[in-house]
Amino acid sequence: MSRTVAYPLVDKNLVIEKLRRVLDPEIGRSIVELNMVRDITVDDGNVSVKIALTVAHCPLAKTLQTDVENAVRKLEDVRSVRVETTTMSKKELEELKLQMQAGTGRPTQSKNEHSVGPGIERLGRRGVRSIIAIISGKGGVGKSFVTSMLASELKRRGYEIGVLDADLTGPSIAKVLGVSGKPFKGPGGGIVPLRTKTGIKVMSINLVLDDPSTPVIWRGPIVNSVIRQLYWDVDWGDLHYLFVDLPPGTSDAPLTVFQSLPLDGVIVVSSPQDLASMIVSKAVNMAKKMNVSALGLIENFSYLQCPSCGERVNLFGESKGEKFAAGLGLPFLGAIPLDPAIAQLSDQGRIEDYSSPIIANIADELRTRAAGKIEQLTQGLPIAWSVEPSQ
Amino acid sequence: MSRTVAYPLVDKNLVIEKLRRVLDPEIGRSIVELNMVRDITVDDGNVSVKIALTVAHCPLAKTLQTDVENAVRKLEDVRSVRVETTTMSKKELEELKLQMQAGTGRPTQSKNEHSVGPGIERLGRRGVRSIIAIISGKGGVGKSFVTSMLASELKRRGYEIGVLDADLTGPSIAKVLGVSGKPFKGPGGGIVPLRTKTGIKVMSINLVLDDPSTPVIWRGPIVNSVIRQLYWDVDWGDLHYLFVDLPPGTSDAPLTVFQSLPLDGVIVVSSPQDLASMIVSKAVNMAKKMNVSALGLIENFSYLQCPSCGERVNLFGESKGEKFAAGLGLPFLGAIPLDPAIAQLSDQGRIEDYSSPIIANIADELRTRAAGKIEQLTQGLPIAWSVEPSQ
Repeated sequence: MSRTVAYPLVDKNLVIEKLRRVLDPEIGRSIVELNMVRDITVDDGNVSVKIALTVAHCPLAKTLQTDVENAVRKLEDVRSVRVETTTMSKKELEELKLQMQAGTGRPTQSKNEHSVGPGIERLGRRGVRSIIAIISGKGGVGKSFVTSMLASELKRRGYEIGVLDADLTGPSIAKVLGVSGKPFKGPGGGIVPLRTKTGIKVMSINLVLDDPSTPVIWRGPIVNSVIRQLYWDVDWGDLHYLFVDLPPGTSDAPLTVFQSLPLDGVIVVSSPQDLASMIVSKAVNMAKKMNVSALGLIENFSYLQCPSCGERVNLFGESKGEKFAAGLGLPFLGAIPLDPAIAQLSDQGRIEDYSSPIIANIADELRTRAAGKIEQLTQGLPIAWSVEPSQ
Repeated sequence: MSRTVAYPLVDKNLVIEKLRRVLDPEIGRSIVELNMVRDITVDDGNVSVKIALTVAHCPLAKTLQTDVENAVRKLEDVRSVRVETTTMSKKELEELKLQMQAGTGRPTQSKNEHSVGPGIERLGRRGVRSIIAIISGKGGVGKSFVTSMLASELKRRGYEIGVLDADLTGPSIAKVLGVSGKPFKGPGGGIVPLRTKTGIKVMSINLVLDDPSTPVIWRGPIVNSVIRQLYWDVDWGDLHYLFVDLPPGTSDAPLTVFQSLPLDGVIVVSSPQDLASMIVSKAVNMAKKMNVSALGLIENFSYLQCPSCGERVNLFGESKGEKFAAGLGLPFLGAIPLDPAIAQLSDQGRIEDYSSPIIANIADELRTRAAGKIEQLTQGLPIAWSVEPSQ
């Protein structure tokens, strides 16, 4: 049965309105405002948009195209969306550069410049746009999994990503992301982080130890100083996101990360157990006390879909992430089921191969929430303008 | 079809040989050696044993009876076992007391008396016979669950039990065991630990905080001093076992427990993930470096029996506890499946209500292994002689 009612045509202005909310994935400002939208045609519900990219083959081009497509699709009565890309001319780029350097109104780097306590100096951010710590307070709820998943998803979208493993006594990141070998000093004097097969930069104490089963039996002061070194002595280069995987607890290591690193926010990981909620609350309250904003909460191990019968099994009680997040005043980013494939891929160092729609959604949600917080560094240029696509 | 072959009768001497291996549950020496076996009759495969208890209504009497029964049942051709009990006379008790005070050949308290590092003094054991820490290195593998299960099982067998929650930043013990309220100072000046409904004594930082979601944002030196206080300033009284639930990691808190408390051994908790094994190895190697003996390894989350279809799901990979324990040179105590009831009972503070044959076996295994390590305190008398059955 074909539709015979008069077709209320999508309007060009409606499309522009939607596009206003699409942010350039790395500049963090509206693509309309940045003058990147070049042409819009609407023909009987079929929408075509032309976007001018800042650089050809920008690794983020595909992500921007998808964002534009998804935004336009939200309009009613859209039948199809086509997104074409072109590249800005040299003159246009110069104009954009001036526009960006004129500033965004947001303070830049102000929070990096002052000391945060007696003897503790906040380190600078160099070329890292956004530094996000993954916390939970409780151990074993999947911080390292969430960290490596977010890193992998955003890398897949074209961002430059680093992961700092701040869990010195229980470091998982190198194993989960499948990197091994010793980091060495680069020509600039900084330690060069190792790279995963997709190009994520990784630094972990386990890469420095001769034997990964050697315990680091260190008291707080040494832990603190090593964490600062893993951040500051490493040549992270230009990154969109540096994810910091925190150990459980609210003692030395998390405290040092909160006090020493110029964090833009934390992601909180929980599980459905009341017991976990109680301890996770402690970590959230710690972040509040340290004036670090929480970007959202992720519930892990929410349930299992039995691989044999397909029934949903609440392993650790009813999922309650949404309610728990609301109680803490945090955005809820999503509930991740326990999937036996995750443990398997983690043990094989192949977690980058894992993907699921739930996790993709969480990564997009994070990307949107973090966009408003991306630091406009004083040198100010988007990473894509200077960085070669990795691999 | 009735058995018609000639019945090779069980021999009284065979029974005595088996009973030689049965240890008095709290003195830790053979009941034959302690002259507790009073009469043995064997009649056509039906065995009857009479045991003289040190005190009437000793809470451990039932456990001793079961141990005797199980030992005799191991003989071939035993049809039935009956265990009767009687009570020692005052004269017999005096003789036993003298025998015990003559010593067991094992050094007493020697390891408590010397300092273990610059400025760190090992605390004494007072009336606590056996102090066992539960470690894993990795968070979230179920240390607190294992701790509270071992405590509950051994309490059920009549032992006097205490649990010290040394995980200051992620304390679970009070919630899991369902105790709340504030501990107060007793007449002797020591802090009186709270008791669970079955009588387990509990001390945790969460009992001291006004709000359990308050984080303790303390650096190492404070953590260390508080752990020492939770042990030393608390009037634990006479205990057979004090279990110490450790936080993950190999930094301040575990280090302080290893250095400050007169530990008799550690129980190691792992999960089937290679990732967990790697981090658990770190903790085991830490214990080795600190000269603390490991009593055995328990694998938790080994598998799930789907509540719908009954199929076994390997949530975190194939169970490999036995092989892993062997690789570390540790006795393997058992593999515990993930049971959704555990999370539920933990959240309700009713973990003492949980029992399973697997866990009962693990507790008995621990009891046997720890028996040889029970300290004969200089004042030397079994707890059962002076303690009233709790509740």
